[in-house]
Amino acid sequence: MIKKVVLVIEYDGSEYKGWQSQKFGVPSVQENVEKALSKIANHPVKVVCAGRTDSGVHASAQVIHFETDVQRNERSWTVGVNTYLPASISVVAARYVTDDFHARFSALTRRYRYVIYSAPFCPAILSNGVTWTYKALNVERMSQAASFFVGTHDFSSFRAVGCQANTPIRTVLNFQVRQLGQYIVLDVRANAFLHHMIRNFAGVLMTVGANEKPVSWAKEVLDAKDRTKGGITAPPTGLYFVDAQYPEHFNVPTRPLGPHFLPHVNEPAYELSS
Amino acid sequence: MIKKVVLVIEYDGSEYKGWQSQKFGVPSVQENVEKALSKIANHPVKVVCAGRTDSGVHASAQVIHFETDVQRNERSWTVGVNTYLPASISVVAARYVTDDFHARFSALTRRYRYVIYSAPFCPAILSNGVTWTYKALNVERMSQAASFFVGTHDFSSFRAVGCQANTPIRTVLNFQVRQLGQYIVLDVRANAFLHHMIRNFAGVLMTVGANEKPVSWAKEVLDAKDRTKGGITAPPTGLYFVDAQYPEHFNVPTRPLGPHFLPHVNEPAYELSS
Repeated sequence: MIKKVVLVIEYDGSEYKGWQSQKFGVPSVQENVEKALSKIANHPVKVVCAGRTDSGVHASAQVIHFETDVQRNERSWTVGVNTYLPASISVVAARYVTDDFHARFSALTRRYRYVIYSAPFCPAILSNGVTWTYKALNVERMSQAASFFVGTHDFSSFRAVGCQANTPIRTVLNFQVRQLGQYIVLDVRANAFLHHMIRNFAGVLMTVGANEKPVSWAKEVLDAKDRTKGGITAPPTGLYFVDAQYPEHFNVPTRPLGPHFLPHVNEPAYELSS
Repeated sequence: MIKKVVLVIEYDGSEYKGWQSQKFGVPSVQENVEKALSKIANHPVKVVCAGRTDSGVHASAQVIHFETDVQRNERSWTVGVNTYLPASISVVAARYVTDDFHARFSALTRRYRYVIYSAPFCPAILSNGVTWTYKALNVERMSQAASFFVGTHDFSSFRAVGCQANTPIRTVLNFQVRQLGQYIVLDVRANAFLHHMIRNFAGVLMTVGANEKPVSWAKEVLDAKDRTKGGITAPPTGLYFVDAQYPEHFNVPTRPLGPHFLPHVNEPAYELSS
């Protein structure tokens, strides 16, 4: 009997050319996950994810599903699979799910985090896990600019040329801009995203934050519905896929998103003596 | 006229066979730093560091000095040098210092941080920046065990076989064990350290924390003054050189050590809405 399994996986995307399997010799997260699952399942496994990520983009809680006719306990789909995965990919939860579940089509919303490190000198620790700028950024201005993006809009100005979506209309449910010391963290939840949408948001917000354009420019870009009127596409290094929401009855495992700049850290800071 | 320069540098040690220059083709932090400095100085530069780190060990604030007869502003010794360094090494501060300064011999104390990630599944994000264990650890027990190490002791039980120090006597000034969610962070300040000393501390504390030995075993190991009576040497991945203290008159640049598990993060967490 064929059963469906849902997994939550964490990955550091630095060494991959994105989520999606590509031609032979191009490293992808999907290819590595499918290989590891196939070893545990003893048959070829194909997976579907909640949100495909680009080259260099990370995930703290990507959701995927696959089908199998073998019986394994949940520990095999986590600990067992992890023994076949490289250190940069890890399964953090597994659960059997009903047939009608689909990691992509059942998802109600997705959430991404974008981490900017604003400091005079480039970071050596986590250099592939943040987007560095030597410019000072004004978080209040960035937050005002981000508020224009909340709601249902035609996001053509933030859509990559190669984007394959049927429509440029998306609903941004929540857009937070926060500062944690030298880190500036963007948290964006939407029903779905266009290709490069968050990196294009980040490009505009960093320009506004650096005082190179007025806050109102963010609205002008949005209203133009024209990618050529937008800003730069910010680098992928600071981007993390952090959440996909599903109808409750699917009982998909969740992973709490923490307030720190690293999305998998959920606890408050403690006191430190010298 | 020959002048002395002090630098504070940050590095991710994952891809290096330690701080120290070795034979041709073995990547070291020192070799990369000296190469970059030599380009800015236009002459070969040799550097001395506060505390040599092993293969895979990181630093948020390693202190080094070198001599040069060229005149450059401090910006050249930071931004300029960084343009010649790989992404995993970064100069974060530079200052001219008096002749009598020596990064190693002038240091009064050093501090290291050791970061343990205790979770059922191995981390993919920061996998080379923490020491993972699937075991649950009791922080209270670890803290009690660590208290035996504070003070002036013969640390032969925590000293690597190849250690070249003249004496196994060291003074541990402060040893904190703290929990931040799934992270357990050891902060140790001492006048100086023996080879592998912190990793050997970590090995004993993780064994005690996992309830595999009583708290008193830490004292037994210390009292034995015999490395063969000690525990495992914990992996280098979770270890960071975070501070060297000097007499104030040298005016060495400092970098505040934050309460988070990543040593370069200094700010409190913020609120996050869903």
